[in-house]
Amino acid sequence: MTRVAIIGASGYTGLELIKILYSHPKFKITYIGTSKGGEKLSELHPSLKDIVKLDVSKSDAKMVAKMADLVFLALPHKTAMGFAKELISLHVRVVDLSADYRLKIETYEKFYCPHDDKENLSSFVYGLPEIYRDQIKNTLLVANPGCYPTASLLGLLPFVNHIDEKYPIFIDAKSGVSGAGKKAGDANDFVKIDENMSSYNPLKHRHSPEIKEKLRLLTCKDFEVNFVPHKVPLIRGMLVSIYLKLTRDMDASTMLKEFYKSEELVRVRERPTDIKSTAGTNFCDIFVAQNGTSLFISSSIDNLLRGASSQAVVNANLMCGYEENLGVPIFAYVP
Amino acid sequence: MTRVAIIGASGYTGLELIKILYSHPKFKITYIGTSKGGEKLSELHPSLKDIVKLDVSKSDAKMVAKMADLVFLALPHKTAMGFAKELISLHVRVVDLSADYRLKIETYEKFYCPHDDKENLSSFVYGLPEIYRDQIKNTLLVANPGCYPTASLLGLLPFVNHIDEKYPIFIDAKSGVSGAGKKAGDANDFVKIDENMSSYNPLKHRHSPEIKEKLRLLTCKDFEVNFVPHKVPLIRGMLVSIYLKLTRDMDASTMLKEFYKSEELVRVRERPTDIKSTAGTNFCDIFVAQNGTSLFISSSIDNLLRGASSQAVVNANLMCGYEENLGVPIFAYVP
Amino acid sequence: MTRVAIIGASGYTGLELIKILYSHPKFKITYIGTSKGGEKLSELHPSLKDIVKLDVSKSDAKMVAKMADLVFLALPHKTAMGFAKELISLHVRVVDLSADYRLKIETYEKFYCPHDDKENLSSFVYGLPEIYRDQIKNTLLVANPGCYPTASLLGLLPFVNHIDEKYPIFIDAKSGVSGAGKKAGDANDFVKIDENMSSYNPLKHRHSPEIKEKLRLLTCKDFEVNFVPHKVPLIRGMLVSIYLKLTRDMDASTMLKEFYKSEELVRVRERPTDIKSTAGTNFCDIFVAQNGTSLFISSSIDNLLRGASSQAVVNANLMCGYEENLGVPIFAYVP
Amino acid sequence: MTRVAIIGASGYTGLELIKILYSHPKFKITYIGTSKGGEKLSELHPSLKDIVKLDVSKSDAKMVAKMADLVFLALPHKTAMGFAKELISLHVRVVDLSADYRLKIETYEKFYCPHDDKENLSSFVYGLPEIYRDQIKNTLLVANPGCYPTASLLGLLPFVNHIDEKYPIFIDAKSGVSGAGKKAGDANDFVKIDENMSSYNPLKHRHSPEIKEKLRLLTCKDFEVNFVPHKVPLIRGMLVSIYLKLTRDMDASTMLKEFYKSEELVRVRERPTDIKSTAGTNFCDIFVAQNGTSLFISSSIDNLLRGASSQAVVNANLMCGYEENLGVPIFAYVP
Repeated sequence: MTRVAIIGASGYTGLELIKILYSHPKFKITYIGTSKGGEKLSELHPSLKDIVKLDVSKSDAKMVAKMADLVFLALPHKTAMGFAKELISLHVRVVDLSADYRLKIETYEKFYCPHDDKENLSSFVYGLPEIYRDQIKNTLLVANPGCYPTASLLGLLPFVNHIDEKYPIFIDAKSGVSGAGKKAGDANDFVKIDENMSSYNPLKHRHSPEIKEKLRLLTCKDFEVNFVPHKVPLIRGMLVSIYLKLTRDMDASTMLKEFYKSEELVRVRERPTDIKSTAGTNFCDIFVAQNGTSLFISSSIDNLLRGASSQAVVNANLMCGYEENLGVPIFAYVP
Repeated sequence: MTRVAIIGASGYTGLELIKILYSHPKFKITYIGTSKGGEKLSELHPSLKDIVKLDVSKSDAKMVAKMADLVFLALPHKTAMGFAKELISLHVRVVDLSADYRLKIETYEKFYCPHDDKENLSSFVYGLPEIYRDQIKNTLLVANPGCYPTASLLGLLPFVNHIDEKYPIFIDAKSGVSGAGKKAGDANDFVKIDENMSSYNPLKHRHSPEIKEKLRLLTCKDFEVNFVPHKVPLIRGMLVSIYLKLTRDMDASTMLKEFYKSEELVRVRERPTDIKSTAGTNFCDIFVAQNGTSLFISSSIDNLLRGASSQAVVNANLMCGYEENLGVPIFAYVP
Repeated sequence: MTRVAIIGASGYTGLELIKILYSHPKFKITYIGTSKGGEKLSELHPSLKDIVKLDVSKSDAKMVAKMADLVFLALPHKTAMGFAKELISLHVRVVDLSADYRLKIETYEKFYCPHDDKENLSSFVYGLPEIYRDQIKNTLLVANPGCYPTASLLGLLPFVNHIDEKYPIFIDAKSGVSGAGKKAGDANDFVKIDENMSSYNPLKHRHSPEIKEKLRLLTCKDFEVNFVPHKVPLIRGMLVSIYLKLTRDMDASTMLKEFYKSEELVRVRERPTDIKSTAGTNFCDIFVAQNGTSLFISSSIDNLLRGASSQAVVNANLMCGYEENLGVPIFAYVP
Repeated sequence: MTRVAIIGASGYTGLELIKILYSHPKFKITYIGTSKGGEKLSELHPSLKDIVKLDVSKSDAKMVAKMADLVFLALPHKTAMGFAKELISLHVRVVDLSADYRLKIETYEKFYCPHDDKENLSSFVYGLPEIYRDQIKNTLLVANPGCYPTASLLGLLPFVNHIDEKYPIFIDAKSGVSGAGKKAGDANDFVKIDENMSSYNPLKHRHSPEIKEKLRLLTCKDFEVNFVPHKVPLIRGMLVSIYLKLTRDMDASTMLKEFYKSEELVRVRERPTDIKSTAGTNFCDIFVAQNGTSLFISSSIDNLLRGASSQAVVNANLMCGYEENLGVPIFAYVP
């Protein structure tokens, strides 16, 4: 058994981590931390009443290092790196769910804030197993990808060497409201969201440079990526529609199937993907249609699981030498 | 390992059975039947693609009896008894999720239709473990309770000997739309249901006599039960509000806690119960408030799980001598 | 034309007042006030862009008295009476949508707060036209009823002389989320409300004494009223289920039809009422079913319209001698 | 007063026509037809109970021609042209809400079915007032545009002469469920739609050739239009996201404002458009953002109103010489 800590347990990704890790055959939760500490878990998350009876501590890196071999950081960006820095100096394995170690320093500081832990930045592996599986197996530090980049990159990956860079890539993404987090505000006000839909931060969302950078690392090409996220009146799940031009007319559907034939947690769909078939799971479902060289790729994930917590557990499995998909949810919340 | 069959695999309760039993440590699905047979499971239930790769047969009792030790019948009433009769003659254990073996013959024939299998009727045990646990352990045949009766009876049970029978019991029940089944129709038309709410079959729903009969069996009293179900614009879950008069002023909250202190899958709540904390689980959450001898009991379950499929698995666990809650879902679909 | 002011224009009932009064053939909006003042109406309510181009002032009673003959107060309780007191001294007609002038002084102070304007309290008429039409025609001051009391009282009214007072009345009410107001908070957090349902303040809601008091005034009887409100995952509308005992077996359906045969804005339904048929309108739809002397009454209104703003306009019509339903919305937001 | 008939009154667009025309100062409904006839309007549309008390006839062209000066056809395609042909021969004005007279014969027959009324086809004017206002004023026959083409063309119109035809146009459209019509089926099953989202008919929807053809007529250019519609879990409203390349870097926001400065029912938004601000109205709200020459246009309408029934009334107003926006709804269903 590997002892694990969850820091940032009061939010939605923290809750998902607790649910997955509590039932996991190889991980044992030994530490649960929040910024305040001392809450009852059943008050933070009433659905956990009478199930998970663990104490909640005020997050303390030294205590964590004593009690756990691997730490999941489910903290906001900036807070995460403050905490990670200390944990790393204490030689604990880290899976960071924030943006803090996902990007090259220039990109990060341009779109987020000054970086506090530059020296460790390059030690982190970007935790998208379909690209970096081998590196993840051999690292102590993983930067878990953002939800939008996970869905977008998995959709783009099979075609990445055949995208015509003279044309822009357009990504029209739709996310459930849980992506806005647990804090009450206009961004999750029922009356404003229900029976409504709108884009937000069009062409300016912070996940856009993450997608662009990873594409550049993979292809050495600088694609124009125009990313427009929308909020949809549902709780969990994400549907990403990608539009691009191929360099020549090829059978996109066959390419897609071929590319993912050995991946267990990517499913190629013959009908358009929907959110529900992946909500509650670590699956990414992908569908493609084409009009000559014009491509429409539709990619669906659970924003809190494949887009955060269950992908984090997959990364932890790989880091610890366990079977990649051990204990990871695969049955969707259908109906 | 006990070999199990699921008959009626195309509906929602069938799907839930597949999901629970596929991961169950002691049950092995050896037969999946539908009325047509031959479908691909991933077409009946696209979310199962690449996970459950079992054949779907045209339901045949003789084949079932050969291949399975215990059968879950997830069929409409009337169809169920036709099938059960044959299975029983072949000495297979049966958990029937329909209404066919829940009621005394007179009640059944009054509210449903003529009964085709009168001789086996009295051999079935009513599968509400909190009442009939010991009988379930010693039977081969279980009639799984209806969703509304499950939530209502668990709410009423702690108070049943103190209800003033001079007053009627009013039950105002609210159910998610999955209760209406998978067949398209006005009863599950998005445009008619969304942003709407209404009662249906007020004072005339078939689950009302089930509640009344079980109360009579428990107390030898004939309570007036006025049952009004409502449809709520959500998919799964059920909230039952019960109003009644006690014979004398007593501390209802303490009675409730005391009554369920040893039950693992009933949670007593100190704040009003909500649907989400039980959706996705086999829990029943109960809250009580009182105004003197007037009582308000609020009971919440997942209509497809505690109200059908996971309660069926609990019953199967008991019948087979396994731990009662083995393999039964306890983590809610929150957020 | 009667000049009208709307004070408290930033909330949902303020918005509804603007929409109704802007198109009203006899009222002309001459003053719109908020607590801050100076906002653009299209920022407070983006849907009004390019339609209503009126200035928003910091609410000032003296200015209001100069510019308007009648004032709608869409303010929180306590704030309303501070404002009303001054307006009354300036001889302006007032329709107050808050709770401040709805109740007898003892009831008010028990359930709300000390009353600041005791001397005017008794001059207000309770603005439920189906009961107090004649008094409303002859008053300058109207206290607009609460949403729950409107739906409950209209449902109870036809039966009020035949209710058996030895039995409690149980009211199980269901409200859309707009009833919680515009301010972001847990009470209107999408992720907590969507796919969920729960009671709140069971047996303790402030609208309960309002219902009880009006029943006492009508019948000189002190009924036991047990009121339990629930929040439903939809935006607007309200469904109230009432359970009670009659003194003798009588034809409730005929009584209901007879009672409301001359009322234009109460519709008697032969099938269970739903929320959508009244959402967007000033209608109250009522249905009744019975089991001997046990009654189930189902009453549906739009909480923001019949439960607040459009009923306020009806009251203003009556006060000013206009046709009762002039300019009041009757077409539901269906589909 | 102009006497008008509504043929196809049982569906959602028929209902919207009834609601608008019943309150219209210049149109008087003299005939309501359905395919069966004889229903009570309050059974077809319960929300109309006690409001609209008109008889429903089995649709008959000769009777219509006697009783009405102008006919709204709210029928499925193919049925519409059968009916229109006869009406035209009887010299009645027609506003057809179906696809039957929107397209050139070749386009129509390629994407729909053989055309039964070729001779009248060219007499119809395409009823998008922002393009064809003058022709609509002088015609007896109007083909009302599809919902997707209305939102898409109004978004594209200001930029149409500056779109770079070497690049494809991508349109990612999102529609509420009322667009699927009133007939129960998987396409409007609550359990399948709620908490879900998916594209349908990607790159193959019939509204795509309508957009392409109208662009060609306006510009004499043959743009590549890739159209992907999505179904969103809400009832009414539509959000269309358009992605394209301009021929040169220009200030798109200013162009948009300039282009629509005199249009009353198009609102240029400075923040991303949302569905709610237009739902319930005839407005089209448009927002634009750009990344150099790459454009993102967001256009929002009510699919049943601006996308069908209220735009039909605008066309009828123009045909009859009335003020363009007379009696057309402008207040959104907010909150």
